[in-house]
Amino acid sequence: MTSQRHKSFGSDNHAGAHPDVLSALVAANAGDATAYGDDPHTERAAGRLREAFGAAGAFLVFGGTAANVLGLSLMLRPFEAVICLQTAHLSEDECGATERALGSKLLTVPAPDGKLTPGLIATRLAGRGNSHKPQPRAVEIAQATEVGTCYTLAELRAIREFCDAHDLLLYIDGARLANAAAYLGCSLADLAVHADVLSFGGTKNGAVGAEAVIVMNAALVPAMEFQRMQLMQLASKMRFLSAQFNALLDGDLWRRNAATANSMARRLADGVSDVPDLTLAYPVEVNAVFAALDRAQVAELQRDWTFHVWDEPGGERCVVRWMTAFDTTESDVDAFVSAIRATARAAQPVS
Amino acid sequence: MTSQRHKSFGSDNHAGAHPDVLSALVAANAGDATAYGDDPHTERAAGRLREAFGAAGAFLVFGGTAANVLGLSLMLRPFEAVICLQTAHLSEDECGATERALGSKLLTVPAPDGKLTPGLIATRLAGRGNSHKPQPRAVEIAQATEVGTCYTLAELRAIREFCDAHDLLLYIDGARLANAAAYLGCSLADLAVHADVLSFGGTKNGAVGAEAVIVMNAALVPAMEFQRMQLMQLASKMRFLSAQFNALLDGDLWRRNAATANSMARRLADGVSDVPDLTLAYPVEVNAVFAALDRAQVAELQRDWTFHVWDEPGGERCVVRWMTAFDTTESDVDAFVSAIRATARAAQPVS
Amino acid sequence: MTSQRHKSFGSDNHAGAHPDVLSALVAANAGDATAYGDDPHTERAAGRLREAFGAAGAFLVFGGTAANVLGLSLMLRPFEAVICLQTAHLSEDECGATERALGSKLLTVPAPDGKLTPGLIATRLAGRGNSHKPQPRAVEIAQATEVGTCYTLAELRAIREFCDAHDLLLYIDGARLANAAAYLGCSLADLAVHADVLSFGGTKNGAVGAEAVIVMNAALVPAMEFQRMQLMQLASKMRFLSAQFNALLDGDLWRRNAATANSMARRLADGVSDVPDLTLAYPVEVNAVFAALDRAQVAELQRDWTFHVWDEPGGERCVVRWMTAFDTTESDVDAFVSAIRATARAAQPVS
Amino acid sequence: MTSQRHKSFGSDNHAGAHPDVLSALVAANAGDATAYGDDPHTERAAGRLREAFGAAGAFLVFGGTAANVLGLSLMLRPFEAVICLQTAHLSEDECGATERALGSKLLTVPAPDGKLTPGLIATRLAGRGNSHKPQPRAVEIAQATEVGTCYTLAELRAIREFCDAHDLLLYIDGARLANAAAYLGCSLADLAVHADVLSFGGTKNGAVGAEAVIVMNAALVPAMEFQRMQLMQLASKMRFLSAQFNALLDGDLWRRNAATANSMARRLADGVSDVPDLTLAYPVEVNAVFAALDRAQVAELQRDWTFHVWDEPGGERCVVRWMTAFDTTESDVDAFVSAIRATARAAQPVS
Repeated sequence: MTSQRHKSFGSDNHAGAHPDVLSALVAANAGDATAYGDDPHTERAAGRLREAFGAAGAFLVFGGTAANVLGLSLMLRPFEAVICLQTAHLSEDECGATERALGSKLLTVPAPDGKLTPGLIATRLAGRGNSHKPQPRAVEIAQATEVGTCYTLAELRAIREFCDAHDLLLYIDGARLANAAAYLGCSLADLAVHADVLSFGGTKNGAVGAEAVIVMNAALVPAMEFQRMQLMQLASKMRFLSAQFNALLDGDLWRRNAATANSMARRLADGVSDVPDLTLAYPVEVNAVFAALDRAQVAELQRDWTFHVWDEPGGERCVVRWMTAFDTTESDVDAFVSAIRATARAAQPVS
Repeated sequence: MTSQRHKSFGSDNHAGAHPDVLSALVAANAGDATAYGDDPHTERAAGRLREAFGAAGAFLVFGGTAANVLGLSLMLRPFEAVICLQTAHLSEDECGATERALGSKLLTVPAPDGKLTPGLIATRLAGRGNSHKPQPRAVEIAQATEVGTCYTLAELRAIREFCDAHDLLLYIDGARLANAAAYLGCSLADLAVHADVLSFGGTKNGAVGAEAVIVMNAALVPAMEFQRMQLMQLASKMRFLSAQFNALLDGDLWRRNAATANSMARRLADGVSDVPDLTLAYPVEVNAVFAALDRAQVAELQRDWTFHVWDEPGGERCVVRWMTAFDTTESDVDAFVSAIRATARAAQPVS
Repeated sequence: MTSQRHKSFGSDNHAGAHPDVLSALVAANAGDATAYGDDPHTERAAGRLREAFGAAGAFLVFGGTAANVLGLSLMLRPFEAVICLQTAHLSEDECGATERALGSKLLTVPAPDGKLTPGLIATRLAGRGNSHKPQPRAVEIAQATEVGTCYTLAELRAIREFCDAHDLLLYIDGARLANAAAYLGCSLADLAVHADVLSFGGTKNGAVGAEAVIVMNAALVPAMEFQRMQLMQLASKMRFLSAQFNALLDGDLWRRNAATANSMARRLADGVSDVPDLTLAYPVEVNAVFAALDRAQVAELQRDWTFHVWDEPGGERCVVRWMTAFDTTESDVDAFVSAIRATARAAQPVS
Repeated sequence: MTSQRHKSFGSDNHAGAHPDVLSALVAANAGDATAYGDDPHTERAAGRLREAFGAAGAFLVFGGTAANVLGLSLMLRPFEAVICLQTAHLSEDECGATERALGSKLLTVPAPDGKLTPGLIATRLAGRGNSHKPQPRAVEIAQATEVGTCYTLAELRAIREFCDAHDLLLYIDGARLANAAAYLGCSLADLAVHADVLSFGGTKNGAVGAEAVIVMNAALVPAMEFQRMQLMQLASKMRFLSAQFNALLDGDLWRRNAATANSMARRLADGVSDVPDLTLAYPVEVNAVFAALDRAQVAELQRDWTFHVWDEPGGERCVVRWMTAFDTTESDVDAFVSAIRATARAAQPVS
């Protein structure tokens, strides 16, 4: 469990919900509402999401894994496969949910910098037309990426064009889409226009627990309601999912939350930039700082602070992930920076 | 969408959440909490549920369909089947979620009174050992039943004994388990002792949206965490599911909510007992009244009131379902009774 | 195991293979052939099947259950359902293969005479558009039926027209399609024209083991090769499946085999027509005789003869199934008739 | 399709069936036999296989992909995973059959030499106990390997011991198990003793089409009949699969067939050992020769000879696979060697 002494840098889902989200739940509680989404809160949320994304459909689900599986369920028959990164959340952190729900195989590609490219996608197209091989049908990327970076709009466009040229559909895992939009200074529609289906994560952005599946490709919409029900993602008291998104959409709270989290990561990265023997593993673009440092220092820091070791390449160094959230404050960051600096000094051999 | 003019009698999930549940969400929001259930709210809720049920494990999920599928996932290989009623929610109202997630077939039995019995279960055991037939492995019942009645403890014991004698596991769909316990005046453990796995519904009892899967059979516990994740039911901010159950368990709020709903259905049934041409289709034991009446009267009533036609046997009569909730009031019921009486008079031919 | 004293009347798959089929296997063995169907035997068989059926595609698989599952795999997403008889082979005798492979639910209809009709299909369409219900997408019938009868061409046309009018696809389980064509005196194309996909059974017709999936609807063809491979039905030495069909197609051996089997069932039915207390349960149209008789007589007969009890309604009577095959001879039938008559006499009370 | 001018070196499944296998089919055709394996041919084949392997159960299926999926079906729940090579047939050449049928993920490991080792297996155990990760439960290896080599008995023992120490089950894909036994000079039981389940391939060894799933671990036997039926691998006229294995077991025909194929590969490798610019990519242990040579020479050779390019690393070189079969003759090999030598000379630049 999280140490309550200090703000957690373990994950953006260690944070609670934004107060406006909780207020919206309380407000939505008044009176009766028809179940399963036939209520005014849901009508409003879905309409606003469709408008914000320029989408054909918007559907709320309970969690991020479900959003990914449901989004892909609209695209794939069981013999069709998804091309994604070897390190994709879908492949590495969802207990094989896609394989089980859809029967589809993931065709993974290694990429040291955490981004898929047309060239990497092309490496997995060889088996097309060969009945012994799952048939590539969809490409999956995460925006923001698992390593805290963003695909530029030009990079997205290049992937989209490759997909169009090769009869592939594009799914974007947007668990942290808000952070990407905030970093890139673009609209949600600017990102979504490149996808056939994408998710828009509420949970890590300040919701209690709610994710949206945004369907850009109108032909994929009709199956969604049935897939959502059969895959156990239809909320009976849907108004309470919808109210969360309505709160996040009010005054672009989603963007403010994301911008805060991003700027706190930037502050953290800047604060440790001159710490000796600490190097950043990836550019800091959204709300995560990946840093390589000595294992001994990590152990020291973890006595008081919560964060994950991301990668253990062996030897005396390791890569850690420090995540910020919508409610991380400047003083949280500054205290953490001080602790990092202090442990760095402590870990220095006397010269 | 629900008419706001009058209290809905459409479903217990048309109601919002109990204020104590919302307060618990707000309280649980303070500070950080480790994700995925490793937090003090979840530790407390799981511990209290295990204690209340005498259970080996208690696991929270998002919805009732998921609770059923997850509960059965612990018992079944794909060639193993579930014996259940033809009218089981599992079979009729979950879009085939069990078949899809588990690959298992449902072996259904008709039962006019909505209750499974050892004799009915026995009718589906014929194919055992025959490789052309799915192998019966689990029995599924709902407590309370789909038609607003309860299995007595003696009936449960008889089913359990039959299961034991025939190498069958027992799953109880407890979407309205609270209502059954309130009606029977028994503890949750009194009901649970007969099951291998059961669900305990929070949503219809006054939660925002949360269900518990209660595992009585300790051998079935270890797979649960993985099934829950792979079947897309692991909440990242789990504290918010747990807080709901903590609120429902405080001072046995669950039982008070259920007792209120039950007594409002009783009041409604009593109120219409002398309405001409209106007959009750099933005993009124929990929070539903099933009544047969003229289709013309139903149409008239539905102009102002929200409820479902349950069954249309053809002809001029139909069976309707009137459900009460934890927040249904005496004046809600009395107003509805008046409307029923008024439409009944209007529907009478002039003599 | 089958008694070798007498010809089995247990099933048409108790028979071996027709000698021409075995000769064809031996002939096909000469030289090398590319695996997985890229060989001249397969090119020829597939071409001849497409021509005989007027089909868009013809694909060979190992068995009848696989043919059914593969045929339906071309039509269904997991939330889409099949409307079929409660007694359909698909539902009752394939261990839930469809549910497991496709995730789809079977919506079954009882029919005492073993035939689906537009009216019966219509009873399962109510849930359309309701996300809690699997969506009816395909209709499945068997031709010949499980009880040894045939849909007339007019009946098939009526089902087809109903399907067209209600956006349903039609799959025909043709494990005994040859027997139906022989009985009706029609071509394979006359039957197939009503289906989107159908199977053409070789095994019960005199093959060693081979079934064809015939795809009439061209839009459904492209997925087939991948479904066949992923569902484990692609033969590496495909020439040996193809050679079997080439033998059955030569000189319409399939029709001669079916006609023989049918006429032997007719002879059997005629032979027992005046046996006291023996009544036919269904019209004898193809190669099965379903007869109701005393359980005591059945027990006596089964001491020397192989056949199945089909139904045990309780009491002293039961329904048995006597099947004939392509290699059943007149003397086989006559000997069996004599035995039936003898046991009937023995079972008569002395008057 | 295969050129009939020359023996194919494309695959051991380009060969037909051994004449003894065909004779056995003809002999097995006499008289009736109960369907689905309750016949004397099957009783005999299963008994002989159990004895030869020291097995708890032996079950025949149609193909090699099915054997792999069925073998693993006995070991895995959907959240449990298989550790195997990145190049495993299971992973690369079966169109995702395992993922679809079982829902399980494959955890793959690269290995340049085509062999899994305890050290490589260990690299995939990190996620144990973490509900976000599929849980490693089985290890899969092929014997012989995909690159024509064999695990020594010591290597198998080491893998088995590792599995035992880490609560893993071991499945061996034995599509070419006969070739491995012939190369190692050991019994089938010597190989099988290390596995929980393995397959024994008949098809590539001279059968028409039949594979055996051999279950060593008695606890895994009871589910098999149902898995086989539900996964569409139960032959109705099973005697014809069984007869093939009876023929292969008679006088150890399987070993003679394998030894012939192996020795022809050896002869081929020896014959090309001094061809300039041709290098063997892997040791030649069973019936395959993997050779690296110039792409220009390959193109020239493929005008007259049938074989596959295995790997295209780019540049002017590629790796080809030349496979021999039970019916490859010395003169087939010698003619091919001559052609290779001739094209090699032709491809040499004039010096």
